Amino acid sequence: MYRKDIKVMDCTIRDGGLMNKWKFSDAFVGSVYKACVEGGIDYMEIGYKTSEKYFSKEEYGHWKFCEEKDIRRIVGENKTNTKISVMVDIGRVEPDNILPKSKSVIDMVRVAAYLHQIDKAIVLAEHCLDKGYETSINLMAVSKVNERDLDEALSDVAKSKVPIFYLVDSFGSLYCEQIELFAKKYMNILKGKSIGIHAHNNMQLAFSNTITAAIHGCSMLDATLLGLGRGAGNCPIEILIAFLKNPKYRLLPLFQAIQDHMIPLQKEISWGYHLPYLVTGAMNEHPKEAMEWMESEKREDYVGFLKHMHDNFALLE
Amino acid sequence: MYRKDIKVMDCTIRDGGLMNKWKFSDAFVGSVYKACVEGGIDYMEIGYKTSEKYFSKEEYGHWKFCEEKDIRRIVGENKTNTKISVMVDIGRVEPDNILPKSKSVIDMVRVAAYLHQIDKAIVLAEHCLDKGYETSINLMAVSKVNERDLDEALSDVAKSKVPIFYLVDSFGSLYCEQIELFAKKYMNILKGKSIGIHAHNNMQLAFSNTITAAIHGCSMLDATLLGLGRGAGNCPIEILIAFLKNPKYRLLPLFQAIQDHMIPLQKEISWGYHLPYLVTGAMNEHPKEAMEWMESEKREDYVGFLKHMHDNFALLE
Repeated sequence: MYRKDIKVMDCTIRDGGLMNKWKFSDAFVGSVYKACVEGGIDYMEIGYKTSEKYFSKEEYGHWKFCEEKDIRRIVGENKTNTKISVMVDIGRVEPDNILPKSKSVIDMVRVAAYLHQIDKAIVLAEHCLDKGYETSINLMAVSKVNERDLDEALSDVAKSKVPIFYLVDSFGSLYCEQIELFAKKYMNILKGKSIGIHAHNNMQLAFSNTITAAIHGCSMLDATLLGLGRGAGNCPIEILIAFLKNPKYRLLPLFQAIQDHMIPLQKEISWGYHLPYLVTGAMNEHPKEAMEWMESEKREDYVGFLKHMHDNFALLE
Repeated sequence: MYRKDIKVMDCTIRDGGLMNKWKFSDAFVGSVYKACVEGGIDYMEIGYKTSEKYFSKEEYGHWKFCEEKDIRRIVGENKTNTKISVMVDIGRVEPDNILPKSKSVIDMVRVAAYLHQIDKAIVLAEHCLDKGYETSINLMAVSKVNERDLDEALSDVAKSKVPIFYLVDSFGSLYCEQIELFAKKYMNILKGKSIGIHAHNNMQLAFSNTITAAIHGCSMLDATLLGLGRGAGNCPIEILIAFLKNPKYRLLPLFQAIQDHMIPLQKEISWGYHLPYLVTGAMNEHPKEAMEWMESEKREDYVGFLKHMHDNFALLE
């Protein structure tokens, strides 16, 4: 598939940080940045932007806050073809603390929001746009929303200046047919805007759903090195790049970073396909119960987890 | 998706044996059998059927040979709803050594063949049919064949008595669009026969491709516990069963077997998603080079493997 409009967004640090409170060393973040630059990746999302007003710096690493000085320590003036992105959550960032683009090395601010926050998300995204950033709204947990509420929100987004909107499978619970339906709906209601896809791998569908979305017109594709991300993780960027075969991308630098940094990390943090994540994905539930289970002594008691979820949610057995 | 015609075939021992020369203990094989029976799985493929004329019993375990006495030691008379299957390779089985069905606890014989062996496969499959078995032809490595040769072979199969034909992605190199095209072709040329799907997980597409094939009419679905199988492994049966939600299937016994037997095995054998398997899958090559690499000291030198394959096959970089 050769599509000039396709852009790949590496979210290794931002989404991966959900597994270690963003406590990545500079060497680790630097190696991901180097891999992105050398691999021709279009965007690297280096973390969340929030402030000490909301979270403690004792508890969380730099990439929960993404202060300008910390980013610059890794990327300098970033004279490369890889753009730098940060994500903001509604209610966890002070709009006035976002510098004008002319004073920042950040290129893009993505606004993550639940459906009931969509009005606030439009205001915040337009604020970032006015400050000179590329911007998007990433509507989380769409697998849980009521179709009529979704249509209303999409028609509000359609009227806004926000140029990019994301299909986000937060719980890793969507199958290819649902991805196709959502992608077509987004493309149809949001004509003229770019649509992105952010998938989770609970049912080993993250890569598959990403290419299904691309086939149906999505052009911003989120992925991470070796799929690092919350719970079951994300679409592995190395599979996506091997698939795309676009000459601007190179696989070797991604392999190097995986070999040098991700494999060692995998020995400390259990992201990826594990049965508790399969269960929450198949049940269309937030992975938090599975994450707690995986962090406990019971992590390999899959039968116990299935029973626990069955008792609490009465779905699978 | 509720489709009464769908049958699930567990291939844990047969395909998994490619990773350990079928040296499974009786306790292990018995636990897989128990999981299949209690989980409502339609078929369990317990191994290959061959003879000492072709392979040494010193080198290979029981499930490479599938002698009647060995199978009965596990399943007795198999008074259950789970049927027992074996696979045969062209040229590695003596047709006269296959007992009449009335004397065997085996229900199904699947004939694996490459395209140039299709005539022999039809003869052997019809021989098994005449002896009273359910039977199929599993055409391997379809990702490598010439379309015109394939059409000719399919039209020969169409004229045969063989009732089931499999779409087999031996190298884990097919994407959803290709699965859809092959499934439609098979369904179209082989009207009135059942079509099966056997997928490999090199690009994390085994489950996705299995459901894509099912959506387009395939009804025999191969899968294995925790995806155990050659190289990157197969479609994980637990994801498939969680997806199907058909009341005849139960997830809990599958989870129990995974917890008790597959997780410990995974500490000894490296099947599943690993970068060398991704490389051979994306290159549409047999996984043997990747398997050798994974068994060597160099197993985590992914960059080295990519360069090795690039030098030899000049495709990815």
